[in-house]
Amino acid sequence: MTQAAEPHPALQNLEYEDGVLLWGGRKLTDVADELCGTPFYAYDRQRMSQRVQELRRALPEDLHLHYAMKANPMPELVAHMVGLVDGLDVASAGELQVALGTGVDPAHVSFAGPGKQDFELDAAIRAGINVNMESEGEMRRIAKLAAQINIQPSVAIRVNSPFELKTSGMKMGGRPSPFGVDAERVPAMLRQLKSLGLGFRGFHVYSGSQNLRVEAIQESMNSTVDLILELAGSTDLGVSFVNIGGGLGIPYFPKERPLDLDELSDTAEKAVRRLKQSLDDPEVIMELGRYLVGEAGIYVCRVIDIKESRGARYAITDGGLHHHLAASGNFGQVIRKNYPLAAVVRKKADTEITVVGPLCTPLDLLGDRVSIDHLEEGSLVAILQSGAYGKTASPTDFLSHPLCKEILI
Amino acid sequence: MTQAAEPHPALQNLEYEDGVLLWGGRKLTDVADELCGTPFYAYDRQRMSQRVQELRRALPEDLHLHYAMKANPMPELVAHMVGLVDGLDVASAGELQVALGTGVDPAHVSFAGPGKQDFELDAAIRAGINVNMESEGEMRRIAKLAAQINIQPSVAIRVNSPFELKTSGMKMGGRPSPFGVDAERVPAMLRQLKSLGLGFRGFHVYSGSQNLRVEAIQESMNSTVDLILELAGSTDLGVSFVNIGGGLGIPYFPKERPLDLDELSDTAEKAVRRLKQSLDDPEVIMELGRYLVGEAGIYVCRVIDIKESRGARYAITDGGLHHHLAASGNFGQVIRKNYPLAAVVRKKADTEITVVGPLCTPLDLLGDRVSIDHLEEGSLVAILQSGAYGKTASPTDFLSHPLCKEILI
Repeated sequence: MTQAAEPHPALQNLEYEDGVLLWGGRKLTDVADELCGTPFYAYDRQRMSQRVQELRRALPEDLHLHYAMKANPMPELVAHMVGLVDGLDVASAGELQVALGTGVDPAHVSFAGPGKQDFELDAAIRAGINVNMESEGEMRRIAKLAAQINIQPSVAIRVNSPFELKTSGMKMGGRPSPFGVDAERVPAMLRQLKSLGLGFRGFHVYSGSQNLRVEAIQESMNSTVDLILELAGSTDLGVSFVNIGGGLGIPYFPKERPLDLDELSDTAEKAVRRLKQSLDDPEVIMELGRYLVGEAGIYVCRVIDIKESRGARYAITDGGLHHHLAASGNFGQVIRKNYPLAAVVRKKADTEITVVGPLCTPLDLLGDRVSIDHLEEGSLVAILQSGAYGKTASPTDFLSHPLCKEILI
Repeated sequence: MTQAAEPHPALQNLEYEDGVLLWGGRKLTDVADELCGTPFYAYDRQRMSQRVQELRRALPEDLHLHYAMKANPMPELVAHMVGLVDGLDVASAGELQVALGTGVDPAHVSFAGPGKQDFELDAAIRAGINVNMESEGEMRRIAKLAAQINIQPSVAIRVNSPFELKTSGMKMGGRPSPFGVDAERVPAMLRQLKSLGLGFRGFHVYSGSQNLRVEAIQESMNSTVDLILELAGSTDLGVSFVNIGGGLGIPYFPKERPLDLDELSDTAEKAVRRLKQSLDDPEVIMELGRYLVGEAGIYVCRVIDIKESRGARYAITDGGLHHHLAASGNFGQVIRKNYPLAAVVRKKADTEITVVGPLCTPLDLLGDRVSIDHLEEGSLVAILQSGAYGKTASPTDFLSHPLCKEILI
């Protein structure tokens, strides 16, 4: 099934020393020993730094980058990102706490997400971060809470755009959504916002994520700028920032190829120029999570048992969907496909084997008939592209197995 | 979409007091206050006891029932189950610890699961529980570990049967599987087991789960007995127990209907008789997880915001896929369908509304256009059929929201 002629891009430039896969310049066997065993996630600082450099090189220098912590909220990793990017986006009070712990300037932190609770809004207002409001109801709750503590909150409106970022091109029309405020309701909301005395800062538009088609991202950028200029024109409130979203994807599955950032340069340049010139020089922000950290992370587990059953070979590992739900194909995938897998220690020739976890369910499948270096009892197996939506997006308590570890290298 | 003419069976016999939904005889609004808020899972002892009584009434009295803890390992719940059933099945050392904590007799505890680690096997052997072996390699590791601590381990062989439990009837043929040992390899394994001096106790066959078709379960029971008798005939080792698996399903989705246990009586009676008479009166065990606790549990969350978007109405709650992944349709469902939902407080007429969680992802959908009593900000919403594969099968750290609570009533 996965005997693709060309190896996955994530497998093409791996570095080995003495036949052992390196991550962050270290042998993963040594990392396993240092952590007292498997399974673990390892995140490579250098890969994150390099990714941000690539973006800075291809995109206009006054397009600011925010890291969306939901992709990976490990505190050390967030602290590393703070040194690289221009701000953070948080999705809960829990993420806000981690963000503030890094010493980031609260003025460069935004909080988006439907269903923010009062205790979360209260914490956000007190911290002085920006709240991207998702509904008129939320705006009223913010006004009430802010009045109680006598602080003018910093707010933006998240807009449910009349278009969508689709891999199959743009879908016009405007769908209902729990996220953001329908564009057509924004002018009235701005009037209300003004009368409530909130500190308006700008707009947030997020049209989709994990896109590998440059044309779709370009179209979305252009439409987002059109939309924001139209909405800004409907009010006399000044716009000090515009978050145009992200959506840049990384290749996970066979045949997927990485984005060519250079193809985005012109569109991004034009988008930033239009916003800066038409409005009063607002900060323009691109919000990225997975794209910044997804390829910097690897998940490593150990083979507990090799078994044969009716002609098929299985490597049963100590890692599984309880640590890495997405790799098992149970996190939003309609059709399950394999993440790229590699043996940590290179041995003999390739073999075809199915890699599964230790859970008593057929869902616990990490690699279905993968072509991989020879595996045996005790071998380490690595799952690439695991830096985003890994540990925290997994049911870690499922079947009460030990937790996995995380290390930033 | 979900305006089924007939309400889901789980919604048909709900009890209310003063218009408030009761669970375990208590108003869920009171439970929410007692727990200092939502979201939470509440499990009703009485419903579990009743379910076991129904099984005892319909099935032969010498068919023993085991509770498979993987469905819900909450310690208080497991302790309650120990008072009702004849034994426990564990799937990890973590579950074993909880099992032993209830004071259950280790002789009535079995441990199944591929990829058992040495530390788990060691703990199991020392505790004197039964290990259902999943491969020849595991058998050798058990023999080695047992020799080191000089204890004769109690073992059974989990058999990968040559048939499968299918909702669409039995599929003959025998597929490769990471679970159990292929039936055709068992005779040789038994010879090896004998020479290794392990304490053989019996066989474990598990052909599938969550089945709502009586005929399929009947066929599976019959085939399982045939298989076990054949395998037992290939050895002179005595068989002291036989675990014939489970597979009984509960209705989750629209149009699904509960099993009629009476239709299983004859087949179960015959299965137990054949095994008892053909072998030397072994203990015959049925292993059930979801069927014992699934309908006893309810998940309750609170509406944070009601919003409209382009003609659709949304109730955004403080609960979501981070606590209840299965209800969001992301745990093994190919096509997402709604779990049965109810408003905790009955108000006015029905309304059609989409119930979502607070997470910044379209996956966080709890009820797609459900017909439900009027909801408003602050309303409590309950998801039925939530006693199994709920909290522990969910990515609780996703987006760093507060944990949900659990209570046994």
